[in-house]
Amino acid sequence: MTYPNLTPERAAMNELHADGLRAGDPATWQLTEDAFAVGAQLHSETVFTIGNGQLCVRGSFEEGHPGDHPASFMHGVWDDMPVSVTELANLPRWWGIDLWFDGDRFRLDTGRLLDFTRSLDLLTGVLSRSLRWEAPSGAVVELGFERFVDFSSPHRAAVRVSIATDRAVQVRTRAGLDAHVENTGLLHWRVVDQGAGDAAAWLHTRTRATGIDLACACEVTLDGVEADATAGGTDGVPTIEHSFELQPRRAVVLTKQVAIVSGIDAADPVAEATGLARESAGAGWDALRAASDSAWLQAWARTDVVIGGDPEAQLALRFSLFQLLIAAPRFTENASIGAKTLSGFGYRHHVFWDTETFMVPPFSYSQPEIARNMLMYRWHGLAGAREKARANGHRGAQFPWESAGTGAEVTPSWMADPGDRTKLIRVWAGDIEIHITADIALAVMQYWQVTGDDAFICGYGAELVLDGAVFWASAAKREDDGSYHFRNVVGPDEYHDRVDDNAYTNHLAAWHLRTAGIVAGWLAGHHPERWAQLSAALAIDAAELDHWETVAAAMYLPVGTDGLLEQFTGYFALRDVDVAELRDPARTTSMQQRYGFEGITETQVLKQPDVLMLAYLLPELFTGEALARNYAYYDPRTDHEHGSSLGPAISAVMACRAGQPEVGYQHFLRAARADLRDVRHNAGDGIHGASAGGLWQAVVFGFAGLEVIADGWHTTPMLPKHWTRVEFGFEHRGVRQRVVVEA
Amino acid sequence: MTYPNLTPERAAMNELHADGLRAGDPATWQLTEDAFAVGAQLHSETVFTIGNGQLCVRGSFEEGHPGDHPASFMHGVWDDMPVSVTELANLPRWWGIDLWFDGDRFRLDTGRLLDFTRSLDLLTGVLSRSLRWEAPSGAVVELGFERFVDFSSPHRAAVRVSIATDRAVQVRTRAGLDAHVENTGLLHWRVVDQGAGDAAAWLHTRTRATGIDLACACEVTLDGVEADATAGGTDGVPTIEHSFELQPRRAVVLTKQVAIVSGIDAADPVAEATGLARESAGAGWDALRAASDSAWLQAWARTDVVIGGDPEAQLALRFSLFQLLIAAPRFTENASIGAKTLSGFGYRHHVFWDTETFMVPPFSYSQPEIARNMLMYRWHGLAGAREKARANGHRGAQFPWESAGTGAEVTPSWMADPGDRTKLIRVWAGDIEIHITADIALAVMQYWQVTGDDAFICGYGAELVLDGAVFWASAAKREDDGSYHFRNVVGPDEYHDRVDDNAYTNHLAAWHLRTAGIVAGWLAGHHPERWAQLSAALAIDAAELDHWETVAAAMYLPVGTDGLLEQFTGYFALRDVDVAELRDPARTTSMQQRYGFEGITETQVLKQPDVLMLAYLLPELFTGEALARNYAYYDPRTDHEHGSSLGPAISAVMACRAGQPEVGYQHFLRAARADLRDVRHNAGDGIHGASAGGLWQAVVFGFAGLEVIADGWHTTPMLPKHWTRVEFGFEHRGVRQRVVVEA
Repeated sequence: MTYPNLTPERAAMNELHADGLRAGDPATWQLTEDAFAVGAQLHSETVFTIGNGQLCVRGSFEEGHPGDHPASFMHGVWDDMPVSVTELANLPRWWGIDLWFDGDRFRLDTGRLLDFTRSLDLLTGVLSRSLRWEAPSGAVVELGFERFVDFSSPHRAAVRVSIATDRAVQVRTRAGLDAHVENTGLLHWRVVDQGAGDAAAWLHTRTRATGIDLACACEVTLDGVEADATAGGTDGVPTIEHSFELQPRRAVVLTKQVAIVSGIDAADPVAEATGLARESAGAGWDALRAASDSAWLQAWARTDVVIGGDPEAQLALRFSLFQLLIAAPRFTENASIGAKTLSGFGYRHHVFWDTETFMVPPFSYSQPEIARNMLMYRWHGLAGAREKARANGHRGAQFPWESAGTGAEVTPSWMADPGDRTKLIRVWAGDIEIHITADIALAVMQYWQVTGDDAFICGYGAELVLDGAVFWASAAKREDDGSYHFRNVVGPDEYHDRVDDNAYTNHLAAWHLRTAGIVAGWLAGHHPERWAQLSAALAIDAAELDHWETVAAAMYLPVGTDGLLEQFTGYFALRDVDVAELRDPARTTSMQQRYGFEGITETQVLKQPDVLMLAYLLPELFTGEALARNYAYYDPRTDHEHGSSLGPAISAVMACRAGQPEVGYQHFLRAARADLRDVRHNAGDGIHGASAGGLWQAVVFGFAGLEVIADGWHTTPMLPKHWTRVEFGFEHRGVRQRVVVEA
Repeated sequence: MTYPNLTPERAAMNELHADGLRAGDPATWQLTEDAFAVGAQLHSETVFTIGNGQLCVRGSFEEGHPGDHPASFMHGVWDDMPVSVTELANLPRWWGIDLWFDGDRFRLDTGRLLDFTRSLDLLTGVLSRSLRWEAPSGAVVELGFERFVDFSSPHRAAVRVSIATDRAVQVRTRAGLDAHVENTGLLHWRVVDQGAGDAAAWLHTRTRATGIDLACACEVTLDGVEADATAGGTDGVPTIEHSFELQPRRAVVLTKQVAIVSGIDAADPVAEATGLARESAGAGWDALRAASDSAWLQAWARTDVVIGGDPEAQLALRFSLFQLLIAAPRFTENASIGAKTLSGFGYRHHVFWDTETFMVPPFSYSQPEIARNMLMYRWHGLAGAREKARANGHRGAQFPWESAGTGAEVTPSWMADPGDRTKLIRVWAGDIEIHITADIALAVMQYWQVTGDDAFICGYGAELVLDGAVFWASAAKREDDGSYHFRNVVGPDEYHDRVDDNAYTNHLAAWHLRTAGIVAGWLAGHHPERWAQLSAALAIDAAELDHWETVAAAMYLPVGTDGLLEQFTGYFALRDVDVAELRDPARTTSMQQRYGFEGITETQVLKQPDVLMLAYLLPELFTGEALARNYAYYDPRTDHEHGSSLGPAISAVMACRAGQPEVGYQHFLRAARADLRDVRHNAGDGIHGASAGGLWQAVVFGFAGLEVIADGWHTTPMLPKHWTRVEFGFEHRGVRQRVVVEA
């Protein structure tokens, strides 16, 4: 099937640009499914999410399907909710197209599906679906859907469908906008106003609690047949309908150009959205595609990582990078990537340590301006972090465990008991999972190291690092043993909450305090005016700087025999792991589900290995045999299969550092399959963003062994034996570097 | 404005029947407002609720209004929700009519409102609204809306509007059904199917968690003009539209006959609802009105209470009885009246002790078959009550503090902190407010006393009383002092939670145990087979009966000097009340809001006076000077104005018993105005059902002083000085009694 307005010249040009990137196996750029399985539809909706770094839409069908979770999200459009405090409001359904054939409504739960292919082109972000469907009337319909979100600008998207039939059929089409959407049973919108004409419709809604205005507009054109258009709809649902008789084997194409603008981005979002949609309709599908494709090619040219000899790994890595690219804030520094990206309702789009630890690094290396946006999001949230420190009786900036629109702490204090929904379970993370403040400092320092972006550090980054150090120094308690302790905390391993002296937390706090001293010295030396201003604003005087050194030096950091660190005080005394049970391939639930929230705390089973995470981030702490010793102890005690989705990619790196790339590859596969194979049965809630970012780190920092050092960079490759090469680029202090590692 | 199809004969007949009841001031049957105030619209929506004991609809405008809380509820249609567990799903909007005049949509936030009257006829349950509205175009439109819910059958309702204009105007009408409704931001429905034709539309929805099917159907007719009808709508919104030119001063009437049937009541609710709507349309508006009016007249003839000399009191009492009549389960014994009736979202329609203590008595006296339905609802919930006792380690039936569809405990364990919505406050009522089990037994015994319905007691009532006694005997703990105690409970006065030996609870438990012994004896003597069967099923043997006597005799029941009871152990030691503050007329918030949830527990301020409530229910405990002594102590310490809405009506009775009818009248007025004047600023959430039932008790048991005794009944009147008479009927052991009390 060809589309009337896609000219051969345009197609050839796109091919030309794509050639270099498409070299090798084109299948490694295509995520494809050849059948529709109702039971897997939520998983498919997630993995077929497309977007542009501002606006994402799940792969939900244009016509809908029973049990689907249709959703589209836009950065910044937060609204309040019970229990989980706040979430992004699911946008009005802008991608819908309803079709009737001789009165039969098209939907895959009726009639008979003869052929079905859904395909996502990672290179251009275009989602396509071709199918043949036998209507209850017996007519056979051929449909080809295509949609994309313009990657070159924040507010535009387009959908079209080509329609052909095997006999003369009366066709009715309805395309419009629909405010009757939900966030898993919750409503966020009120309808303000709406309108529909013969070719255009618009809808003005407002979030209920936060009062954010949103305008959606669409322009609808029908090519290949003469048909009158009718404006219609009901409250909240402006529509444009067409009715016509379609002759056999004569394809028609219905095209819907969409624009979505919030009151955050425009003073008159309705005027802006209707204007943009009109402009798109005037320019045509191809023009928008060309602009979008070109932006995608530029992004991929900077981001792609080539893996030779392993198509599954290649596709999985490109898929992970695609998911990060569509969710990363490319057009704003007031948003970041939530734990489940913009692809589902999981974790209500809140931003955790996942972002800085797992997702920022790929951007710091490949597209630093995006990493900068994400770090700026934290800078804009400093007021919230300071308020959190104040509320806890501390000074400085204590970053929230979960952050949303403002930087205030939004971790729910309670969650529904999965076993009894009338009961609530206390969630401690927002109160005592304090390591995130150091994780943010680590991301800032890593960004600085690879980019050399002194201007960012001077203007913003130093403030993040320094005020975080004020928090650590204020919160650490000196006890009778002369050491500083952090008691009653949670480390990354959330199987054990409310522990004392978590190794990960204490070491990172000490590192943060020492690093802040260096940053202070650099700022005082290179930007004395900024230092004078900032040190005054943050009340950092000589005594404070001395105090940082004192706390860092006297931090309680126990080391066992042979450099084996105890994850927290008392960990080694817990009941040891039953290896047969932990490694049983027949197990299908996490060890926490098996032992219960309390029971699991009495064992040494780990959701993820804190000490190895620490070794990954601060390798200088693990000299000599210490790395191998800790790896040998903690790796076997980790619930790799069903514990944290954050762990496997980092375990892959640590296996490489321990000289075991084949073991590392097994960990890598777990991360690679987290979403594509839905191993945790929760991909329907959204992409595992940390796993996606970790996958890039596993390849670049693990198998390729890239390390940026004081005077440049080097690699220590450790490829799995079937990999023939790894090739990628990154920006080192503004200069593009090309890295090729061959077997 | 007259309606074309309301014949003079029919109107005359209705007048005839109504004459007897309408004698006196007709205004005391009419609730009327002459202006529309946006700020009071939620209050007005509540008080203009109409219904038929199965289906209620708030007084929300047919055309909608910004900020309204449109809602309609039907008994039995429960669905799950977070935090509050379960609620009745707001029904699809079936009463809507949308109108356009020369393209201007009619709604009161546009154009100019020239005249407005809304009126509820309590005698027939018909809600009317007449208005003149100047459209933005300048055309002046006269609209007369009327609606009623058929009181003679469970599933039918009707709406109509007459339309006239001052000039020729192009009119567009849209009437249909709308599934896009909400329960304060929550969704309960999925759309299963829908349909619309030229004159009829139907909608099939299903609750999300409980899977209850619901069918709504409507038939639409337009009289007075020729106009083509068009079927239309969008997903979840089937509609029927008319467009026509209306000539000046030529009224047309659009009539919508509606039927709503759930899967609980019919195997094929869609067929049932469409059939009923068609039947209504065939019979016409007048026929349905006649049937409904006749059912209303019968109900009023049995229920009305005439108050001479006080139109405000008369209207308030009729309004309260109307609200109870439309919410009381007239067609099912699987439902009861929730704390806020069927008129709003407050307390999520859960059934509390309010029902048996305040709302059942008026029905036990005036329409015992409805009281029986409400008590049968408890009998059907026995499994839930037994499960609750089991879960707490007790035997017998412990009734839930809040009950919904199944009789299981549905009290939320947590509520949002009004001061900080991210925080939750523990709600103890579901755990420890245990007095409800005795309150239910009291209602059963009172019903039996006045009705003499031995068959109900034998079949059901005895089981409620006996298994409740098993619970009390099992839960009471004998302590070292030799007495039985109930520690850590909440009495009716919820300002003081987690108290020991609450006088109300302990006395009622002892009464319940003694009463159960009497019931057991009666059953064994009069229905030995039933006793054999029931005593075996409930494991009540001679030892158990002895144990009841022992517990009742040794219950800890301290009495102070002069018969003054201490509300709970330690109450008298609390800080005494600051009378100036408590009685300050300028205070606008409750004492709990002023002192906080913890702070109020440290004072003697009462939400409602437990001891006086006890004296009301068990007067035999307060002999000699005891009543006056307790009244004098507790009444002044009660937050009458802003505490519980349950208190004032009972305080009115107690003031009469203390010989102070004028003081009683002040309390009476507080109850009378609870909803009509919205004194607590929360009438928008629904009618205060307990206050409504209490108002009847204040007049009948207080001012008229009716008392049913072993061999009949007598009255001890204590009328306020400006009342000229009180006249009412009740059924004593199946025989209608007429009571007339004159000043």
